[in-house]
Amino acid sequence: MKVKGDHYRSIWWDDAAGEVRIIDQRWLPHEFRIVTLDTLEEFAVAIRDMWVRGAPLIGATAAFGIAGQMSRDSSDASFEVAYDTLNATRPTAINLKWALDRCRGALMPLPASERASHARQLARAIADEDVDINAAIGRHGLDLIREIAARKPKGEPVRLLTHCNAGWLATVDWGTATSPMYHAHEAGIPVHVWVDETRPRNQGALTSWELGEHGISHRYIVDNAGGHLMQHGLVDAVITGTDRTTAQGDVCNKIGTYLKALAAHDNGIPFYVALPSPTIDWTVRDGVAEIPIEERDQREVTHVMGVAEENTVSDVRVTPEGTEGGNPAFDVTPNRLVTGLITERGVCEASAEGLATLFPERADT
Amino acid sequence: MKVKGDHYRSIWWDDAAGEVRIIDQRWLPHEFRIVTLDTLEEFAVAIRDMWVRGAPLIGATAAFGIAGQMSRDSSDASFEVAYDTLNATRPTAINLKWALDRCRGALMPLPASERASHARQLARAIADEDVDINAAIGRHGLDLIREIAARKPKGEPVRLLTHCNAGWLATVDWGTATSPMYHAHEAGIPVHVWVDETRPRNQGALTSWELGEHGISHRYIVDNAGGHLMQHGLVDAVITGTDRTTAQGDVCNKIGTYLKALAAHDNGIPFYVALPSPTIDWTVRDGVAEIPIEERDQREVTHVMGVAEENTVSDVRVTPEGTEGGNPAFDVTPNRLVTGLITERGVCEASAEGLATLFPERADT
Repeated sequence: MKVKGDHYRSIWWDDAAGEVRIIDQRWLPHEFRIVTLDTLEEFAVAIRDMWVRGAPLIGATAAFGIAGQMSRDSSDASFEVAYDTLNATRPTAINLKWALDRCRGALMPLPASERASHARQLARAIADEDVDINAAIGRHGLDLIREIAARKPKGEPVRLLTHCNAGWLATVDWGTATSPMYHAHEAGIPVHVWVDETRPRNQGALTSWELGEHGISHRYIVDNAGGHLMQHGLVDAVITGTDRTTAQGDVCNKIGTYLKALAAHDNGIPFYVALPSPTIDWTVRDGVAEIPIEERDQREVTHVMGVAEENTVSDVRVTPEGTEGGNPAFDVTPNRLVTGLITERGVCEASAEGLATLFPERADT
Repeated sequence: MKVKGDHYRSIWWDDAAGEVRIIDQRWLPHEFRIVTLDTLEEFAVAIRDMWVRGAPLIGATAAFGIAGQMSRDSSDASFEVAYDTLNATRPTAINLKWALDRCRGALMPLPASERASHARQLARAIADEDVDINAAIGRHGLDLIREIAARKPKGEPVRLLTHCNAGWLATVDWGTATSPMYHAHEAGIPVHVWVDETRPRNQGALTSWELGEHGISHRYIVDNAGGHLMQHGLVDAVITGTDRTTAQGDVCNKIGTYLKALAAHDNGIPFYVALPSPTIDWTVRDGVAEIPIEERDQREVTHVMGVAEENTVSDVRVTPEGTEGGNPAFDVTPNRLVTGLITERGVCEASAEGLATLFPERADT
C-alpha cells in the first residue's frame, strides 16, 4: 500500500537494481527504512531479528533467500545449507517451512543450471499469491462494508474497529483485516478505523502508520476503549485477523481479541475475522481447550517502547521495580461470538458447517 | 497500609511535629516521597497538581487545609479565602466541595477562638470516617473471599482481578476494591491479584506498588489479558471500584471495566464492585444513557510514562507522529453484569431493589 504517496510491498524484487528489498520494520512506526538483502546471512538475520514479520511475509522472504543462494551456487549442498539456515530462524513460523519445502520440491528436480532463474520466479510467485489471496479477502470484505454503508446516511463513514496489526506490513501487500478497509477506501466508501493499541507490543501503532500513510481516517485508542465506543453506537463492525482458526471456527488471535468480540456481541455489532485459508488448522476443533497459548517475556508488559523526547527510540519501565508481569500472547474467541469468517473464497459462518460451504474438500477431515 | 514495613495513611496529622503530612503521589510507583503541607497555597497545589488523588483523599486534604488556615487566622474572611482557594483546585471533585461545606457548617457558628482546634478535630474525623467506611467494605468483601476460599483446596490462593487503582492511595487507608484483599491477607487467606495495567494512565502500576509493599502476591497484566485468564479458570472473582454508581446499580468506572464485566459474565465468574455509599448517585438510573463520559487529553493515549534507562521518569510516544488518539476516560457497566455491590453497609444486588435493602432511607428517591 502507499507510503509517502508511493506504492510499496513489504518485500519486492527491484528489477533495475537486480536486488531484493524489504522495509526494515524494526524502526516502524517511527522511521521508514528500506534495506537490500543479499547474502544468505542477511536474509536469515532479517527473519530472525524481525526486520520482517507476519507469516506470509516470512515465507516470501525465505523464498527470496533461497533464490539469492541459488544465484550464487545452485548445487544441492548449497540449497541444503540455505534451507537449514533459514528454517532455523523462526522455528515456530509455519509459513517458513512451508515456503522452504515448496522451494525444495520445485527446485531439486531441476538441473542445477536452471535453478537460479526458477527460484527467483518461484519467490515472486509466492509473494504474488499472498497478494492475490489478500486482495480476494479485501473484495469479499468490501461487500460487507458496502452493505453497512448502504444503511447509513450518505457520506457518513463506516466505522470499523480492529485489533493488532493484520495489515499489509504483516503480509506482502493489502494485509488481511485491513484489506477490506483499503478496498473500501479505494471504492470511494468513507471509512473510519478505531485502532486498538494492542498492548503489550502496541501493534496498533503499526496499523495507525499504515492507515495514515494510505490516507485512511483513523484514531488510536487504548484497548480498554472499544466496549464504550460500541455501547454508544460508534462502531459499525469489528474486523480482526487471526493466527489460527480451528475447524469449527474458533479464532486464535492476539490477546484481547476475545474481549472485543464479547463487546461486539453484547451490542449487536458484527464481528468479522479475515483470514487466508492456510491459517485454518483443520486438526483442531475446540480452540479454547486445545490451543496452547504462548506466555511471552514479561518485559513486554512491564516496559513500553516509544520515541523519547530527544527523538530516540527507547523503552520505559511502567511498573514498580521488581513487579512481575503475566504475558499470555494470544486468546481464543469462541465461534459463537464470530459473525463471519472472511476468506479468499468468500464469507462464511464461523462453524464447521460454514467452513464446509467454502472448503468442501476439507469438510470430512 | 504498609510501605517498607511501616503502616502509612495517604494523609495524616503528625502529632509530634504538629504538621500535616502526605505521600506525594506524583512520583509513585517509582519513588516514595513524604511531604509536609503547611500554607494554604501548599494545600491548594497538592490537590490541584495531583500530589493527592481520589475523591475521599481530596476531601480530607481540603479539610486539613482549612484547619491549617484556621490555626493562622480564624476569621470569617480567612475561612472564605481558604474555601474559595481550595474549592477552585479541582472543580469537578464532588468530595472537595462536600468537605469544605461540612467545615463551613461546623466552624462558622463557632466563636473564632474555638475554630482552630475544632477544624483540626474535624479534619481528623473526616479522614477517620473514610478509613472506617473502607474498613467496613473490606470486612463485607472478606466474607465473599472467605466463601470462595472455602470451596478451593486448602492453601490455594483466591485469585482476584482488579482494574485501575481503587486502592488505599486513592483513599485515606484500605482503599475500596483493595480493602477486601488486604482484609483477606490479614485474615490469613492467601490471595493472588491480577492487576490490570489500566491504560492510558497505568494506574495498575500504583496498585502493584501498594500490593507489593504490603506483601500481597500479584501480577501486572495488560488490559487485554483478563478474558483469557478467565476462560482458563485462573480468576475466581473480579473486584473493582467505581467513580459513580447509579440508583439502579449501573457502575461508572475507569475505561475498560465493562470489558472485564463482560468476560466475567461469559465465564460465570462473580464481578463485584466496592463502593462507599457517598458515590451512589441517586439522581441517575440508566448509566449508559445518562452519564456523560469525559474525553481526556489524547496525549495520555499516544504517550506512556515510565522510568527510562538512566532512571529518570519520562514519557515516550508510542504512536506515529501526528496520529490522533481517542481517550474516553470512563465506561459504564450495566447492572446485569454486576454480581454484587460491596458497600460499607453490606453486599447487595446491583439493582434499585438491592440498594433499597441496604439504603431504605433512599429507596423512594
